[in-house]
Amino acid sequence: MAGIKEPLLPVPGFAALGMNVGIKDERLDFGVVHAAGPCTAAGVFTRNNFPGAPVLVGREHLADGQLQTVVVNSKNANVATGLSGVEDSRRICRAIGDALGVAPELVLPSSTGVIGVRLPVERILAACAGVPAGLRPDREGWEGFARAIMTTDTRPKAISLQVGAATLTGVAKGAGMIEPNMATMLCYLFTDAAVPVSVLDKALRAAVNASFNRISIDTDTSTSDTVVVLASGSAGPVPEADLAAALAEACLYLAKEIARDGEGATKLIELRVSGAPTPEAALAIAKSVINSPLVKTAIYGADPNWGRLVMAVGKVFAHPVPLEALRISFGDPAAGLAISAASQSPETLARIADYLKGSELRLHLSVGAGPATETVWGCDLTEGYVRENAYYTT
Amino acid sequence: MAGIKEPLLPVPGFAALGMNVGIKDERLDFGVVHAAGPCTAAGVFTRNNFPGAPVLVGREHLADGQLQTVVVNSKNANVATGLSGVEDSRRICRAIGDALGVAPELVLPSSTGVIGVRLPVERILAACAGVPAGLRPDREGWEGFARAIMTTDTRPKAISLQVGAATLTGVAKGAGMIEPNMATMLCYLFTDAAVPVSVLDKALRAAVNASFNRISIDTDTSTSDTVVVLASGSAGPVPEADLAAALAEACLYLAKEIARDGEGATKLIELRVSGAPTPEAALAIAKSVINSPLVKTAIYGADPNWGRLVMAVGKVFAHPVPLEALRISFGDPAAGLAISAASQSPETLARIADYLKGSELRLHLSVGAGPATETVWGCDLTEGYVRENAYYTT
Repeated sequence: MAGIKEPLLPVPGFAALGMNVGIKDERLDFGVVHAAGPCTAAGVFTRNNFPGAPVLVGREHLADGQLQTVVVNSKNANVATGLSGVEDSRRICRAIGDALGVAPELVLPSSTGVIGVRLPVERILAACAGVPAGLRPDREGWEGFARAIMTTDTRPKAISLQVGAATLTGVAKGAGMIEPNMATMLCYLFTDAAVPVSVLDKALRAAVNASFNRISIDTDTSTSDTVVVLASGSAGPVPEADLAAALAEACLYLAKEIARDGEGATKLIELRVSGAPTPEAALAIAKSVINSPLVKTAIYGADPNWGRLVMAVGKVFAHPVPLEALRISFGDPAAGLAISAASQSPETLARIADYLKGSELRLHLSVGAGPATETVWGCDLTEGYVRENAYYTT
Repeated sequence: MAGIKEPLLPVPGFAALGMNVGIKDERLDFGVVHAAGPCTAAGVFTRNNFPGAPVLVGREHLADGQLQTVVVNSKNANVATGLSGVEDSRRICRAIGDALGVAPELVLPSSTGVIGVRLPVERILAACAGVPAGLRPDREGWEGFARAIMTTDTRPKAISLQVGAATLTGVAKGAGMIEPNMATMLCYLFTDAAVPVSVLDKALRAAVNASFNRISIDTDTSTSDTVVVLASGSAGPVPEADLAAALAEACLYLAKEIARDGEGATKLIELRVSGAPTPEAALAIAKSVINSPLVKTAIYGADPNWGRLVMAVGKVFAHPVPLEALRISFGDPAAGLAISAASQSPETLARIADYLKGSELRLHLSVGAGPATETVWGCDLTEGYVRENAYYTT
């Protein structure tokens, strides 16, 4: 797998658009990606017990492993809208299907935005007739799609990779209501590689587990999380391992982009926990630290308050770590910015404070001599997060 | 049990002080409460896996159910300070014991403040000789103690109750690094009632479980949490039920005071979950909502974004609630400020927005027809929380 990281390479055989249909204001709020024919498809969805209407309909449409079209609106999540919301989602699939000449079951619907408000569905339905004329196979069409699905994101998120003769392009959004341990946010991946459903499904689950399930912005789990991949097959088969590696790379890139663009975030934090007895212990410790408001605010303030890292490791009641085994390092291991209960000089703390002023931070917690290592990504907690979320609907 | 809620009634037979010993700056940082003779005593401590040195020493001294003196310093937690930290804590107990003529094992030490920095123990030891002269049986002595144990608290927290002929006075501190489900923060309760250790222990555990274990400020669990009660016996025995009720009332009052004074908080939130199948389900749902950053920021902004409450109920994967069973009410049930997936008018949302502008909020989630109800307390998440915690040590 060769990695062209030029964002947003159009995938041959697909076309895309982003447009405004007036769901809330004049910003782009409606996006479509459409393949020339039916694709094999796989997906994972939110574990929230109140999934949005589009998640319910999307799971149904994905059940046979085939999709041709993805239709997404932002500014309204169509969640907690009851049976009317489900019917709204179905009507959108039918209208898009009619306009594009595909069965509604080949359409995956998504919605993201405010919860608990009925979709202005007539505006969306009215716009569907114009979709065929608006779809573009070029980069502008894809960029429009990437922008149309944004909510509080400050920038579009996309990646393209070459897998042999095939292209893989992923587009994602997500900036808040994000917590690891499940399929997370909206992410759509498209490839012209030929991939059997079972291979696609397995590769996607592995990629999501190592990426979106390892990021956290605020511990809150969205009701709309969706990650799907469509493979058209027009570029022919590719080695299974190459496809899996490309999916993993794309998902990890997009997951980090989401963490970096977390609501109000000023810093991307990569946290590695090693030396744990089991992967579960490593992940539990990593999540406790990456989710701790006191760790996140200290990092925002570039405060080398390592006691808060100790506290966050110590509050994982199920997986105690001997304090004398705990070693915390910052940045490149070669830089020697490491502290432990036995050793923390004022000079080291001053250098760590300097390091924490950066916008991409790497922390490593060594917690013992065990075999397990896990890595997670998150962001700092700032006044900006509070401001963005205090007045979201009003 | 008659409730005099006049804060800070001195308990006959005890004396107290608050003073500055220069641990960090010129503010009060050292407090002592001392009984005329040995008291029966009970306590609960943090479940954090890295308890502070004073917690280790305190557990040891409390093992025989007897204490006579409580010595507390703020501005430094003496946590993650290794064996030297434990020795520092023992030296303080010995110095106070020598000065007051009590065995060191009758002294309970506590420290609260920054983690991972060695105590300036010589300054504390030097101050101990002056403690006997400084102790006062009057209200000023007790107020000094209540102020000396504060960290980011904006005000002292105390309550006094009459239990028959006996007095019960509780003093607490705590404003951050606070998460339910364990003994929490620093709280000291003193009474002149005569109470057997087993009764005192049982009553204290019940009171803590219904109060401090039901509050949350930021999901972070301190390494120093301590709640102890000393009963001198000089006022004679009181009915067990009266003592238990007084302890419960004092702990609940102080727990709510702590939630109300959460770092940066502008609102106290009382959240009741009813209709759950089990107490575990009710508590898990209540904690998910009271800890959700998106719920907390919406309440800060008085934004009637009820979809976030739905999300926070839905992310309790282990206890699914049917969406149609969920009913959310605000304030006095008689006011009719209730919404559900089936019913939310713009007028109701506007009235809820008005209600949310208050500083004491009551929310009630009805989640079904089950028998279990739980109540928890928390606070909003504000820019003030971020500011206070971004630059704590620097």
